[in-house]
Amino acid sequence: MRLARYGTAGHEVPYVITDDDRYLEVSRVAQDFGPAFFAGGGMDRLKDWLGSPGALDRAGGEPPGRVGAPIARPGKIVCIGINYADHAAEAGMDVPREPVVFLKGADTVVGPYDDVHIPRGATKVDWEVELGVVIGRRARYLQSEEDALECIAGYVVSHDVSERAFQLERGGQWDKGKCCETFNPVGPWLVSAEEVTDPQSLTLHLAVNGELMQDGSTSDMVFGVASILVYLSQFMVLEPGDMVNTGTPAGVALGRPEQPFLKEGDVVVAGIAGLGEQRQEFVAAP
Amino acid sequence: MRLARYGTAGHEVPYVITDDDRYLEVSRVAQDFGPAFFAGGGMDRLKDWLGSPGALDRAGGEPPGRVGAPIARPGKIVCIGINYADHAAEAGMDVPREPVVFLKGADTVVGPYDDVHIPRGATKVDWEVELGVVIGRRARYLQSEEDALECIAGYVVSHDVSERAFQLERGGQWDKGKCCETFNPVGPWLVSAEEVTDPQSLTLHLAVNGELMQDGSTSDMVFGVASILVYLSQFMVLEPGDMVNTGTPAGVALGRPEQPFLKEGDVVVAGIAGLGEQRQEFVAAP
Repeated sequence: MRLARYGTAGHEVPYVITDDDRYLEVSRVAQDFGPAFFAGGGMDRLKDWLGSPGALDRAGGEPPGRVGAPIARPGKIVCIGINYADHAAEAGMDVPREPVVFLKGADTVVGPYDDVHIPRGATKVDWEVELGVVIGRRARYLQSEEDALECIAGYVVSHDVSERAFQLERGGQWDKGKCCETFNPVGPWLVSAEEVTDPQSLTLHLAVNGELMQDGSTSDMVFGVASILVYLSQFMVLEPGDMVNTGTPAGVALGRPEQPFLKEGDVVVAGIAGLGEQRQEFVAAP
Repeated sequence: MRLARYGTAGHEVPYVITDDDRYLEVSRVAQDFGPAFFAGGGMDRLKDWLGSPGALDRAGGEPPGRVGAPIARPGKIVCIGINYADHAAEAGMDVPREPVVFLKGADTVVGPYDDVHIPRGATKVDWEVELGVVIGRRARYLQSEEDALECIAGYVVSHDVSERAFQLERGGQWDKGKCCETFNPVGPWLVSAEEVTDPQSLTLHLAVNGELMQDGSTSDMVFGVASILVYLSQFMVLEPGDMVNTGTPAGVALGRPEQPFLKEGDVVVAGIAGLGEQRQEFVAAP
């Protein structure tokens, strides 16, 4: 099952994309794909309804307008840093012994094709394609990776845009370079968990102006998805509708000799096999 | 104007506390004191309504049940670290040249008298009384402290509970020790901005089991409230209903020779002059 949301920003309408790539408006079953939907068993209810006679009859062939993020604003976004060994090496950091955790403001989420704003004063805007995990069931003191996988509603392409000078050169914690306006494009779809057979065998790619910059696989994660959720749940409660960004593979601007940070007019295309592809133009913050 | 919310957790009802300490239910004017209320000019609408003939007639003398946080779940909680020189000294850190910024999960907010959970495995649970600033108007690239003050809906007592081992000894960023369940008691009231003549002249206090541990003043902040908002707004958008925790003065457990971290059964009382006082018992996480 693929979930998507279409419409102007802030007024998106929930859809399901059928296996034969038709678009079915589902607002009669799901008010929106937000925390309340996931907490209320919405995924199961929606799946049941899709299996009912005639449910798919009204599906149409045209994608209906702007593509929003496939989830409404998450309760929180938790990010794992330095979670691919090759990215640790390029960033000049040791592979962590336990997950590095930080938060990203949930209001940074935008649609997969929306413009990303280069903040005023920014000099080191960088890309990071990541596997995003959307929480479907409350996770608290998980005891096993099996339990962790049961808490996942689905997976998304998540772009954890970062400003390295803000993140690393302005004192203290990383959050300053992670929470800028529009810094987390998500989508185009959420693919439900049962359709992703193995979240640790997905290839990720990201290109800037047509040049391939990141070309990795979730098989190279230091800490796998289920392990991350078990770990996080010892420190915080993961709520339905929260999103976990699981880290980025090598190939970011920071890790390259020439450090080709993003500038106005650059176009980033990022995707994960089976989860779709997103594209953003980088523009000066208005 | 003092705002408060009463009722069982998750089902609080909005109230105004009158100048003569009566309780007036205001759900006909404000659905809840959350992001939508602040974004929609709710503070002004409520104030106008309170001035209308007979509005106060239904106010009652009894506080109606459990006290919730005076604001519904914030969009995000932004925290300023090391913002009092005496706290920097006790923590063995330099006074920062620019604000240290981190996020706290918005789902950590609980009522001012609710129990706080000592996380499983925790050994260093610490207290931090802070002035909390609730945003009333969208703040983005603010150019002056005057503009910043216009963006404030009101002030609250905010308890930024922290687990120091999780925060400082588990690798990476601080967020691991800041986002634990129940770790941000807020309230008892929100006092509207125009009633706080000078946010930089408020005394804060915190006692553990009756012993005064923190006794400070917002006049000792390294970066004042307006300066913090101007600064933050260069890195992120502050949205109506967001909360900013502005740092804690000296006197936390971490900074004391005996490091008397909190344990089951301890009772913390924390308050700010004019903003009320809160009280929590610390219990083992169920």
